[in-house]
Amino acid sequence: MWRAGSQTWYKLHHLSKAGKLCVPAINVNDSVTKQKFDNLYCCRESILDSLKKTADIMFGGKQVVVCGYGEVGKGCSAALKAMGSVVYVTEIDPICALQACMDGFRLTKLGDVVRQVDMVITCTGNKNVVVREHMDLMKNGCVVCNMGRSNTEIDVSSLRTPELVWQHVRAQVDHIIWPDGRRIVLLAEGRVLNLSSSTVPIYVLSITATTQALALIELFNAPEGRYKQDVYLLPKKLDEYVASLHLHTFDAHLTELTDEQAKYMGLSKNGPFKPSYYR
Amino acid sequence: MWRAGSQTWYKLHHLSKAGKLCVPAINVNDSVTKQKFDNLYCCRESILDSLKKTADIMFGGKQVVVCGYGEVGKGCSAALKAMGSVVYVTEIDPICALQACMDGFRLTKLGDVVRQVDMVITCTGNKNVVVREHMDLMKNGCVVCNMGRSNTEIDVSSLRTPELVWQHVRAQVDHIIWPDGRRIVLLAEGRVLNLSSSTVPIYVLSITATTQALALIELFNAPEGRYKQDVYLLPKKLDEYVASLHLHTFDAHLTELTDEQAKYMGLSKNGPFKPSYYR
Amino acid sequence: MWRAGSQTWYKLHHLSKAGKLCVPAINVNDSVTKQKFDNLYCCRESILDSLKKTADIMFGGKQVVVCGYGEVGKGCSAALKAMGSVVYVTEIDPICALQACMDGFRLTKLGDVVRQVDMVITCTGNKNVVVREHMDLMKNGCVVCNMGRSNTEIDVSSLRTPELVWQHVRAQVDHIIWPDGRRIVLLAEGRVLNLSSSTVPIYVLSITATTQALALIELFNAPEGRYKQDVYLLPKKLDEYVASLHLHTFDAHLTELTDEQAKYMGLSKNGPFKPSYYR
Amino acid sequence: MWRAGSQTWYKLHHLSKAGKLCVPAINVNDSVTKQKFDNLYCCRESILDSLKKTADIMFGGKQVVVCGYGEVGKGCSAALKAMGSVVYVTEIDPICALQACMDGFRLTKLGDVVRQVDMVITCTGNKNVVVREHMDLMKNGCVVCNMGRSNTEIDVSSLRTPELVWQHVRAQVDHIIWPDGRRIVLLAEGRVLNLSSSTVPIYVLSITATTQALALIELFNAPEGRYKQDVYLLPKKLDEYVASLHLHTFDAHLTELTDEQAKYMGLSKNGPFKPSYYR
Repeated sequence: MWRAGSQTWYKLHHLSKAGKLCVPAINVNDSVTKQKFDNLYCCRESILDSLKKTADIMFGGKQVVVCGYGEVGKGCSAALKAMGSVVYVTEIDPICALQACMDGFRLTKLGDVVRQVDMVITCTGNKNVVVREHMDLMKNGCVVCNMGRSNTEIDVSSLRTPELVWQHVRAQVDHIIWPDGRRIVLLAEGRVLNLSSSTVPIYVLSITATTQALALIELFNAPEGRYKQDVYLLPKKLDEYVASLHLHTFDAHLTELTDEQAKYMGLSKNGPFKPSYYR
Repeated sequence: MWRAGSQTWYKLHHLSKAGKLCVPAINVNDSVTKQKFDNLYCCRESILDSLKKTADIMFGGKQVVVCGYGEVGKGCSAALKAMGSVVYVTEIDPICALQACMDGFRLTKLGDVVRQVDMVITCTGNKNVVVREHMDLMKNGCVVCNMGRSNTEIDVSSLRTPELVWQHVRAQVDHIIWPDGRRIVLLAEGRVLNLSSSTVPIYVLSITATTQALALIELFNAPEGRYKQDVYLLPKKLDEYVASLHLHTFDAHLTELTDEQAKYMGLSKNGPFKPSYYR
Repeated sequence: MWRAGSQTWYKLHHLSKAGKLCVPAINVNDSVTKQKFDNLYCCRESILDSLKKTADIMFGGKQVVVCGYGEVGKGCSAALKAMGSVVYVTEIDPICALQACMDGFRLTKLGDVVRQVDMVITCTGNKNVVVREHMDLMKNGCVVCNMGRSNTEIDVSSLRTPELVWQHVRAQVDHIIWPDGRRIVLLAEGRVLNLSSSTVPIYVLSITATTQALALIELFNAPEGRYKQDVYLLPKKLDEYVASLHLHTFDAHLTELTDEQAKYMGLSKNGPFKPSYYR
Repeated sequence: MWRAGSQTWYKLHHLSKAGKLCVPAINVNDSVTKQKFDNLYCCRESILDSLKKTADIMFGGKQVVVCGYGEVGKGCSAALKAMGSVVYVTEIDPICALQACMDGFRLTKLGDVVRQVDMVITCTGNKNVVVREHMDLMKNGCVVCNMGRSNTEIDVSSLRTPELVWQHVRAQVDHIIWPDGRRIVLLAEGRVLNLSSSTVPIYVLSITATTQALALIELFNAPEGRYKQDVYLLPKKLDEYVASLHLHTFDAHLTELTDEQAKYMGLSKNGPFKPSYYR
């Protein structure tokens, strides 16, 4: 169920809309702590780790296109930029697109840069983002991998044709060889790269597990009527509680509101400190 | 009304809760484009600009404490870190606190670092975050300023006592001199620094104005019953529309969903592309 | 004499080669502390400050080309990248070019990106780096400025032709208007931008002044024969002394070698700690 | 001979000073390309790779002290800061110390932070930088490793005492357990971590090998008298040639000097473009 997260919740929402959800559900995948830690911060580290472990690639000076600028794409882009790569971003959502611009990334269509890049990384949660037409244009040695959803983002099936030779180089690494000798480096056969090649930090695992456990306890303990047969976000206060349980690792010291400040802000001193939609 | 944003909406929410709001209202301050551009991206630039224009301070090597790690605090912290400052962060909200940690900032209480820092910047939206007890401990030459709400965050009134001498150095800059000769550099008398000393990029102004205009049009055109006497977020689709209108400045090229992809994601090809709570 | 630095030393070297230098000289401009502080670190801050004060430009999302990747170019590129600009670099020296690549910048020729960029910044120390042919291709509103040598890098004289209209907008800012209405924004008429529009931090001034003073004292006190009629680098030990005098500002604590460590390294415990060519 | 670089050249210099060097030698280790690529850029990547492969540590939010701020220390510090660690630096050389400050790192003595950090990384080229007294103070789980010289920087022999238990966890990872149960995580038994646990990018290998080959060819072909029985730096022109051979990988386009520019700068259009001491 790990990181299949967003996919699972889409399905729950569809069930709910169709009136077929027979129990209340909490979408912990979209809690702030889960989103930021499992997706943003975890991917920021695991993209580097996974690429080193599989393709053993040097990041400095490489041109990379990251497809999708959600939390996963943000993490991957930031990490590669920090290591000296030149990163291009593709997006369908104009809000995320504008964020990519302001974060210093050129926003392009995949087709416009696919000939020149050294790496293509998908983080969209969508399907067929990288298709055969793109791969026919990639330069020799281009690394292609997926950090997004299951195995749908790269159209790997389009590579299983007689004229292309597959060469299994080592675990999680295949070279696909075109008739002219050009080859692309496909990682994990298009499955989620960091799940295939990297580990999840125990810290992130703890955050996600705590989130899930608290959601279950909340559903179990909630007075009748609080939750209907629908999909809910984790209550903000529980989200904050998860975070507060993990601060000590960093020797982090939280400030407490004074009575006067709490009153001024209209907040309880114990939280929640933000409206539910705040991220 | 500009940047009084969050304060205004607090009041509207209170009116609404008290049943005293007599018209529908849209909280454009919490739309994604407004939040990110006016608060995060704008402050990332204007904190540097404002500090140069007033205190003419060198950023490299300086120790700074940023109080509050919301969008404004995130922008200020990132900018100063990028320019070579050592940045400490204070927070009351454990989620934002954990984000500060993962972004590489030491999370402390103000009292624990106030003796050693060269600058104190408030971005909390709260009141009396920096009080006389803190200022009594600051080192000579410490710069104190506010990037958050109106003029409440620094307890400036506590400095208007007979034993302290105020020396007006130039526009927006006062030296407050303790009996022992030690002085702190107070900017804009504790009012919002970038509103006092910096300009708002025309680009950000355009985004905010577009958001406001679209919200008014939406309220005016909405069929009866869509909005009650309550406070709403800007509909996601309008938020996306604001962003899409501003992409061309960056020569940014958006990718369009294929029919197959839209169907797979359960989305319209014209958006909205994210649930309303997505940031 | 300030920041005319490199130019001055070129001339001294030429005099020396021609046998016309009649006294010993120390090239303080190429001491490590001078280079790093006055050029790299100072420009990292002053490019942002100068651009805000003159063109009042938003950095996020802007495309910029920086001509020259010496210390000044490195500082400007790093600062703009950190603020969310997309930065291209041009270079003549393959070593600096490779550094630009590894630092994450696309290395291009000016002509290849001049149509698309929002800003052109020269940092080469050379002449006619930006010529009329380039400026004829720039897009409307492109900002052109010089952070390098005197007023030679941008061929401003080529803009003083009848078909172009000069519009003086405010101090340090001219709009040059083409017959088709397109305009470029020329800062400081091509003179060194930060010297025209920004201040030098007192800290950097102190480092440079100390370097110069120590060089003069060294030349005055040196036993006969130590220096001939030639150009010398500041002795490493004095360079280190300048640095050590400035550490206290940052509350920085230096580690001392143990006797055993000094012996192992073949160093004196008081320095110099590096060979003279080390930077 | 790889990366034993600096050590080897120290010995050659000592031989030379003692009049015992019987052939000319070129110190390729201190060529710019070798220094920057093998030390700075390579370590920037391999410190992350090595730590993931051995300790599998999450970088975000961790406190790290890097001992030594030469090229290796600069690379390690920059990488960890970029990944969200809080990095402290120790130095003996005031010039490097000041650079660390301006790059945004707190400069401390090891003893002042050793109780609080999650990692200690040595990059000094010296011996006994981390001694038993330090390790007695580290907190439980602290990771200790060496990115500098051979196996001298951490006093591992001091850990081989009866009261401490060594537990070999996996390749390159030992837990050293104190009587009170506290353990430190020692990587590669104090030998150079990235040589033990990571690979050298083929690109960096190519740069270093080219540098070495050109140095040998230069020594072989040089007319009699050009080189005496001494240690020389690689001629700047060859250093630049190495770099120029490696630009195509990044699709990097070098600008050529015009005749007029070359004359103005007093340079040949083919280089060398910088004085020999330029880094």
